[in-house]
Amino acid sequence: MLEKQIQAHPERFRVLTGDRPTGPLHLGHLFGTLQNRVRLQDMGVDLFVIIADYQVLTDRDVADRLAETVEGLVLDYLAVGIDPERATVFTHSAIPALNQLMLPFLSLVSVPELQRNPTVKEEIAHSRQSAVSGLMFTYPVHQAADILFCKGNLVPVGRDQLPHVEITRTIARRFTERYGPVFPEPDALLSSAPVLLGTDGTKMSKSRNNAIAIGASADETARLLKGARTDTDRHITYDPVGRPEVSSLVLLAALCLGRSPEDVAAEIGSGGAAALKRTVTEAVNEFLAPMRARRADYAADTGYVRKIIQIGNERANAIADATLAEVRTAMGTAY
Amino acid sequence: MLEKQIQAHPERFRVLTGDRPTGPLHLGHLFGTLQNRVRLQDMGVDLFVIIADYQVLTDRDVADRLAETVEGLVLDYLAVGIDPERATVFTHSAIPALNQLMLPFLSLVSVPELQRNPTVKEEIAHSRQSAVSGLMFTYPVHQAADILFCKGNLVPVGRDQLPHVEITRTIARRFTERYGPVFPEPDALLSSAPVLLGTDGTKMSKSRNNAIAIGASADETARLLKGARTDTDRHITYDPVGRPEVSSLVLLAALCLGRSPEDVAAEIGSGGAAALKRTVTEAVNEFLAPMRARRADYAADTGYVRKIIQIGNERANAIADATLAEVRTAMGTAY
Repeated sequence: MLEKQIQAHPERFRVLTGDRPTGPLHLGHLFGTLQNRVRLQDMGVDLFVIIADYQVLTDRDVADRLAETVEGLVLDYLAVGIDPERATVFTHSAIPALNQLMLPFLSLVSVPELQRNPTVKEEIAHSRQSAVSGLMFTYPVHQAADILFCKGNLVPVGRDQLPHVEITRTIARRFTERYGPVFPEPDALLSSAPVLLGTDGTKMSKSRNNAIAIGASADETARLLKGARTDTDRHITYDPVGRPEVSSLVLLAALCLGRSPEDVAAEIGSGGAAALKRTVTEAVNEFLAPMRARRADYAADTGYVRKIIQIGNERANAIADATLAEVRTAMGTAY
Repeated sequence: MLEKQIQAHPERFRVLTGDRPTGPLHLGHLFGTLQNRVRLQDMGVDLFVIIADYQVLTDRDVADRLAETVEGLVLDYLAVGIDPERATVFTHSAIPALNQLMLPFLSLVSVPELQRNPTVKEEIAHSRQSAVSGLMFTYPVHQAADILFCKGNLVPVGRDQLPHVEITRTIARRFTERYGPVFPEPDALLSSAPVLLGTDGTKMSKSRNNAIAIGASADETARLLKGARTDTDRHITYDPVGRPEVSSLVLLAALCLGRSPEDVAAEIGSGGAAALKRTVTEAVNEFLAPMRARRADYAADTGYVRKIIQIGNERANAIADATLAEVRTAMGTAY
């Protein structure tokens, strides 16, 4: 139903989405979220993409080469079709008025509410208790500020991120009750991302070296897929539960070819893993070729990416300043 | 020793101090902290006075007439001799780059460290657990941002506030270790405030209607002191432990007259409560008269107070922006 409303009136929607700058974006991101962002942008929805650089502060390895990673991220965005003329790409740390919203928002949630947040709970369970930082603990409130500073009313999320959108809605509602209407209550747009495994059969992740980066070369892609894990059954089928590794490769080829995975599997038939790998390598490299060419063009244009970030940050700052001015008036602090 | 260093090189010190805008400042504030601020300012120390308006968000009564209270606070500052040409008076909510510092600083403290903070602990003990807001919980980190945004290196505090300065020092130290030197580790300047009771013999507090406001009229002051609690012993002595109410009045007169409380008590002798009240009323009204005249002048000058706030906020914003730019470079987020 939400999808229908978007199609009918895309101009009524502003989407907030983004990434933590931990490394190059890969095919999991592309089919999981990036394609959807471009789709929404092309429909006429106002797209905001936040590079959440304050969410990687505690990761020393990432922090040391942050600027490079951020620039790579922007190149990936440009490569897949995010259009800086229409979309606003910005970095979290460059928007002070957005960050200031943290303070009034923190006054609208209680400590037990923060403790109940599943992502925070998980983090507390996985790390030593003493290692949970104040930043991680207040993470749902930053995310509310990220979404609400631009009055985003649509947040594409996976099912596991629904609690974050819920706390954002709560904060928006309580702000309205207390100070009057400034913020919308954003809707979650549930995405149905295909489950792609890494080439080693585990979760696709940059750090496991099992993911095909959008910006990788055709050769690197071929090498990674050549070493991909398969199984001993020469007859290729699409059976995600019984044959997860093979099926993930079939699915990847299918996504790139715009065909059904069953169809792709049937065509390979008893060609075995070698034929499967040939098919998927060709499909991926062909599918990514125009994106990679675009990426290379933008990368060659020295200073272009920085310019895009600068323009995006200026636009985001103007919006954040305007929102903060409204917040000041609503809260009675516009002396 | 710190005091000697300040006297020798006042220009090396920047003080951060301030108030929550909960109501008019009274004699407790004057003798407890305001005089000391003016003294430091007049010595040549760079004085920053923050009006902590984000710390009163959860107090509905205060929030409803915040602008009025803030303007009254500035009038009180001007009345006691804080000089906007030399000192910077600003409102917390108007300085986005200061508030942004919350995020990197939150990454440098753990949740247990926040929980251990005595002020936060006390708040948790006194309120229902579910009522402790995220804002209260992270309060020590705001205070670190308040102090460090202007590289304040001197914080006048009472003994009970030492833990706040300690967490600020910890944050500054960890920031330096991690990202390099941007912030000083501020020193606490312990103040020895005289213990003045309210006219009812309990803690002096605006909300108990037992405090003489700096900006009150001479008549209001006389009325409040006339109703002051004393005891039945006609012979006036200075005995804070044995005769707290009488001694507080004696001390108040002494502070206003620049004499010792023993001396004042001896002079009144067996004049009883009536003579004591006459003496203290006259002393207070005479002492405050020039401040009140100044206050009235400034209050009559429409727009002046707003102008002072505006200038102070501009100055604080320029400093906060410069500090945040340094922080960005240090953290590698200056793309």
